[in-house]
Amino acid sequence: MIDSFFYPKSIAVIGATANPKKFGNAVTINILKDKHPDIDLFLISPNKTEILGLKCYDSILDVPQPIDIAIILVPAKIIQKVIDECIEKQVKGIIIITAGFSEIDQEGREEERIIAEKCTKAGIRVMGPNCVGIQNIDLNLNASFIQKAPPGNISMISQSGSFGCASFYALQQEGLGISKFANIGNSIDVSFVDILEFFKNDINSKIISIYMETIKNGKIFVNKLREIIPNKPLILLKGGRTSIGMKAASSHTGSLATNYQILRVAINQVGATLCEDASEFITALKTFSILPIPQGQRIGVLTNSGGSSVLFSDKLEEYKLDLASFSENLKYKMKDYLIPLVKLVNPLDMIGGADEEVYYNITKLMLEEESLDIVVACVVIPPFLEMDSDEHYRGIIRAWNDTKRKKPLIPLIFFGENFDRLNQFAKKERAPIFYTPDEAAYAVKILINRATILSKLDRELSN
Amino acid sequence: MIDSFFYPKSIAVIGATANPKKFGNAVTINILKDKHPDIDLFLISPNKTEILGLKCYDSILDVPQPIDIAIILVPAKIIQKVIDECIEKQVKGIIIITAGFSEIDQEGREEERIIAEKCTKAGIRVMGPNCVGIQNIDLNLNASFIQKAPPGNISMISQSGSFGCASFYALQQEGLGISKFANIGNSIDVSFVDILEFFKNDINSKIISIYMETIKNGKIFVNKLREIIPNKPLILLKGGRTSIGMKAASSHTGSLATNYQILRVAINQVGATLCEDASEFITALKTFSILPIPQGQRIGVLTNSGGSSVLFSDKLEEYKLDLASFSENLKYKMKDYLIPLVKLVNPLDMIGGADEEVYYNITKLMLEEESLDIVVACVVIPPFLEMDSDEHYRGIIRAWNDTKRKKPLIPLIFFGENFDRLNQFAKKERAPIFYTPDEAAYAVKILINRATILSKLDRELSN
Repeated sequence: MIDSFFYPKSIAVIGATANPKKFGNAVTINILKDKHPDIDLFLISPNKTEILGLKCYDSILDVPQPIDIAIILVPAKIIQKVIDECIEKQVKGIIIITAGFSEIDQEGREEERIIAEKCTKAGIRVMGPNCVGIQNIDLNLNASFIQKAPPGNISMISQSGSFGCASFYALQQEGLGISKFANIGNSIDVSFVDILEFFKNDINSKIISIYMETIKNGKIFVNKLREIIPNKPLILLKGGRTSIGMKAASSHTGSLATNYQILRVAINQVGATLCEDASEFITALKTFSILPIPQGQRIGVLTNSGGSSVLFSDKLEEYKLDLASFSENLKYKMKDYLIPLVKLVNPLDMIGGADEEVYYNITKLMLEEESLDIVVACVVIPPFLEMDSDEHYRGIIRAWNDTKRKKPLIPLIFFGENFDRLNQFAKKERAPIFYTPDEAAYAVKILINRATILSKLDRELSN
Repeated sequence: MIDSFFYPKSIAVIGATANPKKFGNAVTINILKDKHPDIDLFLISPNKTEILGLKCYDSILDVPQPIDIAIILVPAKIIQKVIDECIEKQVKGIIIITAGFSEIDQEGREEERIIAEKCTKAGIRVMGPNCVGIQNIDLNLNASFIQKAPPGNISMISQSGSFGCASFYALQQEGLGISKFANIGNSIDVSFVDILEFFKNDINSKIISIYMETIKNGKIFVNKLREIIPNKPLILLKGGRTSIGMKAASSHTGSLATNYQILRVAINQVGATLCEDASEFITALKTFSILPIPQGQRIGVLTNSGGSSVLFSDKLEEYKLDLASFSENLKYKMKDYLIPLVKLVNPLDMIGGADEEVYYNITKLMLEEESLDIVVACVVIPPFLEMDSDEHYRGIIRAWNDTKRKKPLIPLIFFGENFDRLNQFAKKERAPIFYTPDEAAYAVKILINRATILSKLDRELSN
C-alpha cells in the first residue's frame, strides 16, 4: 500500500487553484513540472473549468478513471465530505495537506479520529493531516508544496515539513540529495514504521533519515530500526528532547513528545545514529552518503595547520577515540616527501608549505598503509606562496581515487566554505568536505560506531 | 613597547626575497600593498640590489634611519647574527617568523633561550619565533605572510597562524572583521598578557578574542582577563584541551599545554566566553560584534517553522534557559496580524504563510514588549507562495532598525547559507544571521551570560 504513495499511476489534487498565493497552486505546479509521463494528474476544483491548462473536475467522483492518490488541500471544515468521496472513489491513499486539526484543539482531534476510522474501514491509507506532501525524486515526482529535493541516495521521513525544506537547502549545498521524502505531519494513520518498512526494501534508499518529534509506539519503532540497521545506516534527529522543546512540539504536531532519555538508550542500543542537533544530522547524511565504512578504528591525520589538528584531536578524545601510532614502515616511506622540519608523529604536521604533490603522496601512503583504517586530511587553505585554493584538496581526492576509495577519507578544509572552485570540484567528484574540526571528528565517530555495530552483528550471526 | 608592533613608523624585513615561493616575498608584498604613507619599509637581503622596486640592504645596520620593527625570516641557523645586528641597531621590537626552534628539539629551545635573554637585556621585545606576523587593519598594515583580515572591530591573539588564517575566511563570510591581529607562535617573550594589556586600552578593539594552546602563567593571564571583562567581551578557544590534543599541541608550538579543567574553572569564573569548538568561536565573535547585551533573560520566539523552534527550544533547555510567557497585552496586540490558526504561545508558530509584513509586525511588537529582553526570529525560507527568499529577514531587520536595535535580535535562518541576496543584505545592514537552531541558542546563552556578569560586577561596584 505504501508504494502507491511513492509510485502512483494517477493523482488527484483536491483543492487545486490558479491562485499563486495558495498551497493548492504550489502542489499542482510542482507535480506538473518535469512530470513522469506514466503519471496522470487530475485537478479537482468545483466551478472551475481549467487550471494551468488542465481540465478541472467538480468532484473526484467525476474523474473517469481510477485514482491511486488523492492529495487534499480543502479547508478543514469541508474535509469530511471530500474524504467520503475519496472512499467512494476507492483511492489507494490520501495525503491530507490541510492543517488545523489536533495541533489546534480537541475538535480537530475528533475530526482526525473520524477520518482515520472511516479510511481504515475502507482499507485506504492516510498521510497527514498538517503535512507538506511527499516526493519521489527517482520519478521526478514532487507531490508537495515545498521545493523539489536535489537527487540522491538518502530517503527521509520528517514530522515537520519545514525541517524537510531546510534540510534540502543544506543537502543542495553539500552536493547531496534525496531519493524519497515523506512528511507525515500529525500522522493519524501512516506512521514512521510504515514508511520505514517501505524504505527498508527500496534499493534506491541507501541511507534512511528521520526527523521525529513524537512517536506513538516506541517499541515497534525500535524493532523496525533493528531490521534496517544491518543493511542501511539510519540517522535520526529528535525534536522535543527537553520539556521546553516538547511543549513547543506539542503545538506543532498536536501530540505529546516522547521521553527522550528512554528512546535514546533504545536507539543507541540498536545501532542507529542519533544526532543531537541539526548540524550533526547533515554531517551524518554527508558521511554515510559518500564514505565507506572503515575496517577498524586506527586513525591517521595529516595537516598543514597545527591548530586544526590540535582541535580535531581534542574532539576525538571527547568522543573517547585516539590516534594510531605510525608504523616504522610508514614513517620510512613518508620521509621522502617531507621537509626535515616535519616530525614523523601522528598528527603529521607538514607545515604551511605542503602543496598538491605533498598532500597527494602522504594521503596515498596513509590510505595504503595497513595499520591505518581512517585517514583525516586537514587543510587551512594557504593564502601564500602562489598556491591554488583547491590544490591540497585536489591532491587528497586524487590519492583517494587512486586507492579506489576503499578507506574512508575525511578531508577537513577548515572554514573553506566560500571557496567556489573547491566546492565545485567536490561536487563534481562526489567527494565530501568537512569544514570544522568538530564536524570532521563527528564523521569519524559515527563511521567507527557503524563499523562496530556491523562487526558485532556479524559475530552474532556466525555464533 | 607593544604599540610599536601595531603602530610602527619603520619596518625592516630581514630575509626579503623576490622568489614568490618564499615567505619573505609574501610578507614584503603584503606590507607594500595599500601601505600607509607614514610607514617606511626597508628590505634586508644580502647581495641583492632591488626587490619589488625597493632598494635592498646587506644588513639592517646599513639602513640610514632608525627601525621600529624588524621582521626576521632568515633560516634558523643564522638567526643569532641577525638578532645581534637588530640589537646593535636598537630596534624597538622583533618579529621572528622563522620556524624550527623549540617545536623541533632541545637545541631549538636553547636557541630561543639565548635570543630571549639578549633581547631582554637590550630592552627589545620579541614576538615569535614560528609565527606568521601581525596585522593592524586600522592602518592597512599586514605584516604577516597570511591574507589581510577583513576590517572590523575584533582584535585577536592566536597561538596558531593557520588558525588566524582560517578564522579570517570565516569572518569574511559572516561580514565580520578584525582591528588587530597577532600570532605569538612559540612566544619566547611577548605573551598573551602583553598584547591583552595593549588591546585593553585600544579603542578600536571592541571585542577581544584568543586562540590559545598553552599558557605559561595562568594566574597572571586570568587576572588580566579580569581587568578586561567589565569593558569588553573576551572570547577564548583553547586547543589542547585533552591529552591527545595536548600531545598534538606540543609538537605544534613547542610547549606543554595547560591543564584545561583548572583553566576552565578560572576563566568561567572571571566571565570570559570560553568556547568548546571553532564553530562556537565564530558564533561568539558574530554575536558580540553586532548584538547589544540584553537587560535580562526573558526570551521571545517567533517562527514560520515548528521544527526550527522546537530544536531551538531543546538547545535552550540544555543551556538551562527557558522561554518567557507572553503577556496578555502582547497577545492582544499580536492577534491583529495573525491568522486564526496561530496559537498565541511562545514559541509563536505563525505557520508557512507568514510574509515580510507579518514578520515585521510581530518582531517589532516583541522588540517593543517590556516583558521580553531577547527576540529570536526563526525562518525556514519558504519556496512557495511566490515569497522572496529574503523577505522574512528583511521584515525582521526592518523591525530591529525601527526599534533602534536596542534589544538583541537573533535571526535564525535555518540552513539559509546559500541564499546570496539574503547574505548580501545582511552584510549591507551589518546584521547577523544564525544558520542553525544550535547556533542561535548558543548566541542567546552567551549574551545572557555576559548580561549576568555585567550586572554582577555592577552590584559589586555599588556595594
